[in-house]
Parts: sequence; C-alpha cells; structure tokens
Amino acid sequence: MNTIKTIEWVKNNVVMIDQRLLPEKEVYNTYRDYKGVAEAIKKMVVRGAPAIGVAGAFGVAIGASKIKTDDMKAFKREFAGIAKLLASTRPTAVNLFWAIDRMTRTAEENSRLSVAELKKRLIDEARRIHREDIEINRAMGRHGQKLIKDNSTVLTHCNAGALATAGYGTALGVIRGAVEAGKNIKVFADETRPFLQGSRLTAWELKKDNIDVTLITDNMAGYMMKKGFINSVVVGADRIAANGDTANKIGTYSVAILAKEHGIPFYVAAPTSTIDVKIKHGDFIPIEERDETEVTHMKGIRIAPKGINVKNPAFDVTPARLISAIITEKGVVRAPYAGNIRKLFKKT
Amino acid sequence: MNTIKTIEWVKNNVVMIDQRLLPEKEVYNTYRDYKGVAEAIKKMVVRGAPAIGVAGAFGVAIGASKIKTDDMKAFKREFAGIAKLLASTRPTAVNLFWAIDRMTRTAEENSRLSVAELKKRLIDEARRIHREDIEINRAMGRHGQKLIKDNSTVLTHCNAGALATAGYGTALGVIRGAVEAGKNIKVFADETRPFLQGSRLTAWELKKDNIDVTLITDNMAGYMMKKGFINSVVVGADRIAANGDTANKIGTYSVAILAKEHGIPFYVAAPTSTIDVKIKHGDFIPIEERDETEVTHMKGIRIAPKGINVKNPAFDVTPARLISAIITEKGVVRAPYAGNIRKLFKKT
Repeated sequence: MNTIKTIEWVKNNVVMIDQRLLPEKEVYNTYRDYKGVAEAIKKMVVRGAPAIGVAGAFGVAIGASKIKTDDMKAFKREFAGIAKLLASTRPTAVNLFWAIDRMTRTAEENSRLSVAELKKRLIDEARRIHREDIEINRAMGRHGQKLIKDNSTVLTHCNAGALATAGYGTALGVIRGAVEAGKNIKVFADETRPFLQGSRLTAWELKKDNIDVTLITDNMAGYMMKKGFINSVVVGADRIAANGDTANKIGTYSVAILAKEHGIPFYVAAPTSTIDVKIKHGDFIPIEERDETEVTHMKGIRIAPKGINVKNPAFDVTPARLISAIITEKGVVRAPYAGNIRKLFKKT
Repeated sequence: MNTIKTIEWVKNNVVMIDQRLLPEKEVYNTYRDYKGVAEAIKKMVVRGAPAIGVAGAFGVAIGASKIKTDDMKAFKREFAGIAKLLASTRPTAVNLFWAIDRMTRTAEENSRLSVAELKKRLIDEARRIHREDIEINRAMGRHGQKLIKDNSTVLTHCNAGALATAGYGTALGVIRGAVEAGKNIKVFADETRPFLQGSRLTAWELKKDNIDVTLITDNMAGYMMKKGFINSVVVGADRIAANGDTANKIGTYSVAILAKEHGIPFYVAAPTSTIDVKIKHGDFIPIEERDETEVTHMKGIRIAPKGINVKNPAFDVTPARLISAIITEKGVVRAPYAGNIRKLFKKT
C-alpha cells in the first residue's frame, strides 16, 4: 500500500504528480522555483489540505534556497515576499498557512546562522513536514480504524487520500488502517463535482491498493444510504474551527445532513494542523470561489449554455453538531468539541 | 415564452429535438417508424415523463399507421407488438404506459371501424395527448404559481420543463406561471449528474425565456440553502404512488431531505397521468439502472479509472412525508396524500 508519490523533494527540486491529468495520465512535474510551486497550488496540480501544506513548505524552501544574498537582512526581506506569495494561492485550507508559518518561525529562530546554513535548515524543516505528514496519517489510520466496523461500507467525498497528503491519506488513511487491521471494507466514492476528485483520484488510488471501490455521482449518496448500502462516512477537512465546525470540499455539508437523516455516523479525519483554534466557529472560515468554467466545462468542452449565472464555491462548512467524531493523529475527539479540542492541544 | 418544440407530429412523422446535443446544437430528428421512436426514448433523445408519454403515443400512432393490412385481426396483432416494444424502452416513468394504454383503449373501442379509419383515430388520439399535455402544464402553472412567493428563488433539479413535456413544463411550468403572474422569480438549477439535464436543458430553456437562472453542481444545493439563497424547491415526477411517494430523477430524494433540514417547502409538479394509483407506495416503483458509461464518461471522454465498480440508478423515491404539496392540473394536493389523491381522481 501507499506507493503513490504525491509530492517529493528530489535533488533540491519539488516533484509533484499532476493531479489534473489523473486517472488517464500519470505525469510527474518538476518545479525549480517557488513561483512554479505557487502556480501548481493555485491551478490544483496539487490539492488536499495536508498536501497543500507540504507544497507550501517545499515552495518556501526552494524559494529561500535560491535567494542570491549572504546578507541576512536582505535574505529575510526576500523570504517574506516568497512566503506572502505562496500564502495567497488558496484561502481555505489552513494547513498552507500553518506550514508557511512553521517555515517562517524556522527562519526567525535561526537568524543568527549564516544565510547558507539557514537555507539548509529550511530545507530540512520542509522535508520534516513532509515526513511527519505521512507518520501523522498512519497514526490517524490506527486511531480511526477502530471506528470502522468489519464487513462494512464507507462513503467518502472528494479525495482525502494519499494524493491529498504526503502519503497514506487522512480519510483514506482511516480506510487503509481498517484494511491493514484485517477488516473487510468496501468504499463508495462520490465523484465530487466539479473537479471530480472522487472519480479521478479516490477511485484511482483505492483501485491501485486493491480496495473495493464503487463510484457514484454526488446526488446518489442519499439513495445509497436509504438502500442500506452505507455504514459510515469518513471525509477529510480543509479547516476545522475551535468549536469543531469543519470546512471541507463542497458537498460535504449535504452528505453530513444525509448521514444524520439515515442514522449513519459521520467522521472527519484531519491532522491537528488542520484545526484553526484562532477561528471560533465555521462562519468565519473563508470559502474560496473558483472559476465558473470548472462547472460549465469538462475537459475543455462546454456542457452548459453561455450567458447564464454560475456559482462555484469550492468548500462548505459542516457544523460540529453533524460530526460524530474528529479523528486526529493525537486521538479521536468527540463532542463537546470546543473543550475537547482545547484538551487535544494540551497533549504532547 | 414556450417557443421550444420538444416533440411534434409533422406530416405523419414524429419530429423531436435531440436533447443529447443540447445546449451546443439544436438538431431536430425526424422519425418515420415506431422502432426509431422506441430507440429515441431508450437513448434519451427525448426524456422527461410527460414527453416520453407523448413520444410513446406518437410511436404507437406512427407504427399503427404503417401496418400493411386491412384485416382488423391481423392489425391488432401487429398493434400489440408495437405497443409492447414501445413499453419496454424505459421502466420508471408511468406516463409512457399511461399513454400506450390510452392508445390501446382507442384501438379497442374503435375496432368496429375499418383499419384505415382506425389509423386516423389513433393519430388523432396521439395528437390529442400532445395537445392536452400543454394545456395540462398551463393549468399546473396557474395552480402552482400561487405557492411561489414574489421576489423569491426556486431550486429545481433535473429538467421538468418544456423539454420534458409537449411544452411549457411541469416544474418549470409552475415557475413560468409565477413569472407570467408578474412575480420576480430567480431559479437555481442543479446540473443533475450524470446526464446533466439541469445544465444542458433547464439552464438553456430558462435562458431562452429570459428567466434568471444560476447553475450549480448537485452537491452545492445544501450550501445554497444554508446561505438562505433558496426559498422553495419545485421538481417534476416520473411516477407518484397512491400514497404520494414520488419517483423522480436521481438526487431528488437528497434535495428533499436538504429542504426539510432548512425548513424550505418542497413541491412536486406532475400531471395526474404521472400518478399510478395501482402502486401502493414508493418501494414498488421500478428504478431504472442505466449504463455505467454515463458516469465514467463525459462526451465520450473517460473521467474515471477503468476496472472500478459503478452504480447508475436513474431515479430515486422521495417519501410523501418530505413533500409539502403535489401540484397537478386538477389542483394542489397536500397530506394526507392517500385520501386526497383518491379525491383528486373523483374530480371531473
């Protein structure tokens, strides 16, 4: 399992699988400067909150490593510009800001070193973020798999898999954890319009791991629940507020309501870096609006008439009351979320 | 309003707009025999329960008109084969069987006539079904528009418009009725995967009528409701059971649950020919499973990996408890549905 290399640091360059071309083509792009990495995040070559975090860290590292000065003051000025540009790529996933902040802190804490040594430290830190992400996902898998019953079927939305992380996945990590624990698990994948992360990415990576996956369109989830085909729902997250409200791919909120209606547990799997304790509740999470051509076109072909209005919010917010548990690398959190999330951050 | 010619009887042929090619191309196909009409229903050149009904009637008429015999017994034998083939095209929309039954009854009631005269009667009956359908839709529009508030936004799913009927539409007929009554109405259209009737057809025909339409993917409906952008939901129906349970395009059930969760009224607009009083409740309505390539391919291009499982139910059933009212040409029916539907059929 987990042979997919979503994002890697190779010979001082960043290599990423181009997720826009999956599942037809497995193409790995090499990025040699931070502007390329920023563009890749914006255009969704790489996507998924934890993977965006790693890409942000790698982007900062590659940008910093190419700053042409030995003067620490000049270096820090350029560094700030790099961090700012990378932070402006996408607004919702907090892991991006978390990773850039961590890189910025590393720069600040090591500013007594030479510029050359600091560059090395920054590359080390970015690679640590990458390495830790996989470990964190495996820990989530171990905690979360206990919630998944043997001989059951899990519905997931979007792609919170190896492709959304440095590897193994958050929601799909929980599923992989259950499979590795010897359980017989089947998966239903919502195709997840408009970007089709479910059909293009989730179905692809689960098939690669020989996990039984059934593709449905987003609007079939309610029907499948009513038919008794779904035993639990596990999704990832782009940002979790201090009270447990969770921003995730558009459509997650609807799935959560459907799960509640059918008495099916609804789990969120996310590293603690996705929890934004500065944000009190979900209404304050910024929701990205993406280009309308994602809705009106498919592979460059127009599928809707010209001259109509189109909405394309990339995320929605699921209120904490609809979430049965949040699975993190530090353990499983249940309601009341505000207090239990606070406790989580006191754990070491 | 209502300049779209979905299906017409022209010089003893059936002319239908090819709905698979919309919105890019407005192509009208001419069908000269009943097998062509059957194929057109199966392949969804024509779709939408009332339009399928009209197509079924036209198919019977064109088939009967071309039977080469003057012997009534031989004619009836061939007629039965034609009716049987047309009835086998799609299983869920009851209007198809209703229309074919009506044509069969016409044949039976007029079997004392000559074959030549019966052929004329059958063509007249099919054209009457076509004409009545438009009148019925306009009546539904007048009754239903009273439920739609001025300055409000209506969400609709799939296409229950002029293109789903002989003209004017059922759900979109209610919206057109509200607009014609001078109300300021905006529409949100679910794109309705996998066949995209919402983006390709509903958005197209509303734009043609200058009704303000906003396209969303199916998984955005919950978000838009939460944001307060939707004031009511109006959908069509493919078959309504005696207790009010309603089969309609896949995803309708999910929209009904979302509407309930947000306290938004959920209306079904359908002619009484869509009510199947022989069916006690929704579990008995047959649900068509269509080819998986509708989900895995878009315009012939593969959008999902090979070798995975795919489900493609074309319809789901919304239980009567989630329906605020059923709008018919005979008036608006509310719960308790079983009794009120019975009363409806006693009205003349």
